Amino acid sequence: MNSTPLSSTPRTRLGRSKDRARTDRSALYEVLDAGRICHLGVVVDGSPMVIPTGYGRSGDTLYLHGSSGASSLLAGSGQEICVTVTHFDGIVIARSVFHHSVNYRSAVIYGIPQPLAGEEKLAGLEAITERLAPGQWSTARLPTQKELAATTVLGLSLEEASVKVRQGPPNDDDEDYALDVWAGVLPVQQTFGTPVPDPRLRPGIPVPPHLEAG
Amino acid sequence: MNSTPLSSTPRTRLGRSKDRARTDRSALYEVLDAGRICHLGVVVDGSPMVIPTGYGRSGDTLYLHGSSGASSLLAGSGQEICVTVTHFDGIVIARSVFHHSVNYRSAVIYGIPQPLAGEEKLAGLEAITERLAPGQWSTARLPTQKELAATTVLGLSLEEASVKVRQGPPNDDDEDYALDVWAGVLPVQQTFGTPVPDPRLRPGIPVPPHLEAG
Repeated sequence: MNSTPLSSTPRTRLGRSKDRARTDRSALYEVLDAGRICHLGVVVDGSPMVIPTGYGRSGDTLYLHGSSGASSLLAGSGQEICVTVTHFDGIVIARSVFHHSVNYRSAVIYGIPQPLAGEEKLAGLEAITERLAPGQWSTARLPTQKELAATTVLGLSLEEASVKVRQGPPNDDDEDYALDVWAGVLPVQQTFGTPVPDPRLRPGIPVPPHLEAG
Repeated sequence: MNSTPLSSTPRTRLGRSKDRARTDRSALYEVLDAGRICHLGVVVDGSPMVIPTGYGRSGDTLYLHGSSGASSLLAGSGQEICVTVTHFDGIVIARSVFHHSVNYRSAVIYGIPQPLAGEEKLAGLEAITERLAPGQWSTARLPTQKELAATTVLGLSLEEASVKVRQGPPNDDDEDYALDVWAGVLPVQQTFGTPVPDPRLRPGIPVPPHLEAG
C-alpha cells in the first residue's frame, strides 16, 4: 500500500475552499473504491468531451476500457485525460440562496493512460468488472481472444490526483442565523433494488449471494 | 416549448450502439430535469479538466455558476465546454464478462457559454437553485449585490446535444443463454433521506413541505 501523500501540482492544489482538500492517498482509494462509474474527460479536436464510463482500481493504477473503436478511448490513448469520480451525498439547504451547496466526495485524476496487453490487460478487465459487479469475474464466462481484441484497456497512474470532500451543515452568514428559515442537509444515497432477472433466464438459477448484497 | 429534434453533428451522432440514441428534444429535457449535478468539462492549457457542479435549465438554456474566481468557469468563459448529466439506473449482469454493462440515461451538451448579467443572471441563478432544491428560491434570502458580484453565471445553449439511454436486460451472445449463470439487472436508485437540521437551527422552525418531499 502506497502511503505517499497525493501530489500537489498547481491544478490539483485547491485554489478555493482549501478545507475541503484531502491529501492522504487513502482518501483517494476510498472515493474510487466506493464508486461504480466515472466521468472521463478527453480533448477531441481542441474541444472537451466528457463521457460516463466504468472503471476499476488496483494499487495505484486506474483502469478504463471500451470498444477498440470508441473515439473517446482513441483520443485518450497517448494523450492526457482527466477522470473524475463523484459521490453526491446531500443537498445543503442554507438560509440564503448564496450558501446553498452540495455535500460530496470527489476525486480528480490527471495523466496519460497507457494501453495494456496480455496479463496486464486481463488484470485491468478484472478490476473493472469487480468494481462494477463484485463477484462476477469468477461467475460469468471470461473473455475470449476475440472479445479481448475488441476491447481496449487503458491503465492510468494515480500519481497526479486530488480529492475534495464537503460534509455537514451550511455555512451561513452570521446575521442570517437569525432568519426564520429552515436550514440543514437533505441526505442523498445511492441504493440498490431487488435484482430483476433477465426474461430469458433459464429456470432454476437463483440470484447468487454476491449480487443479493448489491 | 421547442420541438426541433436534437442536432446531429459528427460528435453528437452516436458512432456505436445507435439504438441507444434519443433525438427528440423532450428526452434531453427529461434527463436534465431529473438531475442535480453535472460534470463540466473544460480545456485548461490543452488538458481536459472535469469537475462536478450544479446546473439549471430554462427553455433551451442550461445555466452554470460558480465563484467569479474559479478557474474552471474562467476557462469556460468564451471557450467551448462540454456538460454531461448522467443517471446511473442499474448494473447489467450478463452471462459473460464481456456483456456486462450499465443502464443509464445521459445527456452531453457542447457549446460556448455566455456570461450573464442583470435579470438574465438572476434568472439563471433561480433556475440553478430550483434544480438543486426546488422551492428554495422563494424561501431563502435572495442574493445581495455583493453576492451577485462574487458569482459568475453562464448560459449555454442546448443547440448541440446528444442523449443516450440504455435500459433492460443484458444482450448476451446466443450460445451463452444456455449457461448456468444468473443474468439480469441490479436496479440503482438515488434516494433522499430524512432532512437533517443544522445544529444551529433556531428552535421551532419545521422542515418546509417542499423539502420533505425530497
